Amino acid sequence: MTTLKNDTFLRALLKQPVEYTPVWMMRQAGRYLTEYNATRARAGDFLTLCKTPALATEVTLQPLDRFPLDAAILFSDILTIPDAMGLGLRFAQGEGPVFDKPLKDEKAIHALRVPDPDTELRYVMDAVTEIRKALDNRVPLIGFSGSPFTLACYMVEGRGGTDFRDIKTMLYSRPDLLHQILDKNAQAVTAYLNAQIASGAQAVMIFDTWGGALSHSAYQEFSLRYMRQIITGITREKDNTRIPCIVFTKGGGLWLEAIADIGCDAVGLDWTIDIGDARRRVGDKVALQGNLDPSILFAPPEVIAKETEKILSSYGHGSGHVFNLGHGISQFTPPENAAALVEAVHTLSRKFH
Amino acid sequence: MTTLKNDTFLRALLKQPVEYTPVWMMRQAGRYLTEYNATRARAGDFLTLCKTPALATEVTLQPLDRFPLDAAILFSDILTIPDAMGLGLRFAQGEGPVFDKPLKDEKAIHALRVPDPDTELRYVMDAVTEIRKALDNRVPLIGFSGSPFTLACYMVEGRGGTDFRDIKTMLYSRPDLLHQILDKNAQAVTAYLNAQIASGAQAVMIFDTWGGALSHSAYQEFSLRYMRQIITGITREKDNTRIPCIVFTKGGGLWLEAIADIGCDAVGLDWTIDIGDARRRVGDKVALQGNLDPSILFAPPEVIAKETEKILSSYGHGSGHVFNLGHGISQFTPPENAAALVEAVHTLSRKFH
Repeated sequence: MTTLKNDTFLRALLKQPVEYTPVWMMRQAGRYLTEYNATRARAGDFLTLCKTPALATEVTLQPLDRFPLDAAILFSDILTIPDAMGLGLRFAQGEGPVFDKPLKDEKAIHALRVPDPDTELRYVMDAVTEIRKALDNRVPLIGFSGSPFTLACYMVEGRGGTDFRDIKTMLYSRPDLLHQILDKNAQAVTAYLNAQIASGAQAVMIFDTWGGALSHSAYQEFSLRYMRQIITGITREKDNTRIPCIVFTKGGGLWLEAIADIGCDAVGLDWTIDIGDARRRVGDKVALQGNLDPSILFAPPEVIAKETEKILSSYGHGSGHVFNLGHGISQFTPPENAAALVEAVHTLSRKFH
Repeated sequence: MTTLKNDTFLRALLKQPVEYTPVWMMRQAGRYLTEYNATRARAGDFLTLCKTPALATEVTLQPLDRFPLDAAILFSDILTIPDAMGLGLRFAQGEGPVFDKPLKDEKAIHALRVPDPDTELRYVMDAVTEIRKALDNRVPLIGFSGSPFTLACYMVEGRGGTDFRDIKTMLYSRPDLLHQILDKNAQAVTAYLNAQIASGAQAVMIFDTWGGALSHSAYQEFSLRYMRQIITGITREKDNTRIPCIVFTKGGGLWLEAIADIGCDAVGLDWTIDIGDARRRVGDKVALQGNLDPSILFAPPEVIAKETEKILSSYGHGSGHVFNLGHGISQFTPPENAAALVEAVHTLSRKFH
């Protein structure tokens, strides 16, 4: 059992009373911070940074040393699982992640193997352990994974930022093959999140970055269904403490009721939805996390405060809201504007609690 | 007065009885057709193709000669207006449209001028006239424009496919400047669509390709408001015939009621929304256009028919549905699959009318 110095984030996820709305930022350890860039330069490349627990720990804590954030998130990449599956991940200069051996034929798909997280993704578990130690219970640590569908996009397309032609062709022409990949991915993610929880993650989040590219019915069959499978299979309580699970489908606002129904504790929202409408739609079922457009952090502090207030007052009174951006923070964000956001959330939210 | 040989498309937009659900495809004159590529090669480059009425007429009619489509759409580009405003449009190899003089300072914004469509966009009006003559009343001709916000994205960013950093920084830091641009754009689009209608366009469509990148409240203030302004200003009836107006915000499913409320006759839908849900949400207010994921055209004809049937039966009985893709047809689409779609819509929809 641990005694967290600040458990506001966990309480908000469980809709228990809080004194203010907790806040963290997706991609809070990232390129907008000079100290992050310095550590990354020392690592040499991005994958080495992810695979070296001491360095992953260092960058995970950097934003917490700058801003009074209410949660830390494991520094890692969503593609660690397909990397451990042997698809040959590398980060090509200027084009993001690339797989040297994407799933381009049936044989490769049949051969897909669920990695053992305790051995093949040991570096992630070591990072979780080391981060927990370094955090010394300041705030909770969030573990995470990509969703089975989002991982499959990269695994089939071989890279990000595509038009989804290959994966959608598979989805509509050979759904059996895609289901094979997704089932393997769901098994892998379940084991991976459970290992993170065993190593010390105090909440987990599933990032479904690309589910929003699907049609409403394909989303249910090819993304949501496998996230439900994961939630059914992960540890929800440890040492008599609930391990909350957050699901975030970017562009999933239309499907909110369905997402809230898969057994998660909280749903992440992007900025296209009014969080007050979202709250009315999900009722008491789940907490909500979000949903400031990260571009607002390019504006002056008074605009950031005004837009923060709009979200806080739209959510309204009571617990169940974790403030966040609607997507990862941009590398071009002035860090002082991130500070202004955290300050605004902490100050302006007190009247709602 | 004209007597159209096939006015199914116009009747469906006005929710008048039809015998089958009409269908056309966004970007139906495009690179997936070899004859299009041949004409484009003869033109030399894309802008010359747009600016030569005889060639624009030729490519507009090509898909109609292949498939029994129920509407033709003017072949042009959404960036003709900023081009006429003097921003220096060119199509760079492999990177799409680029403006040599994007709006990077206040002076350039103040200097922005609404072009006279009858002189400065004469080539578009000549194309409309020539296409109408070539169509010989086979099917109606749709005129179109980009939305003020979508045009502004290109005008401020200088190109497409960006992270919207410049325009969103302006939106949140200097909303007054963005409103200036949007007001000019709305005036320009209004005059442009009116000139297209005067030249013979029998319906018009506003493409709000990037409105979906905005937050719910920014969308209303910076995109929807200016589309309403256009709809208030355009010709809605000519020779005792209604000129229907379609509004399409990609990614706008959450805002459907608000879009249906700006005075348009029909709302375009992308594939993330169930068209039956959309119909329940808008009631009798507007017709709906959409919404097959264009990626489904990579699948075999039986899958295309099955997915078409799903959309038709989700919409259900009665008029008010124009079948379309949820976005432009991909250049990689086999033309025989486009044929299978048109055939499926025409055949399978009869039982709903």
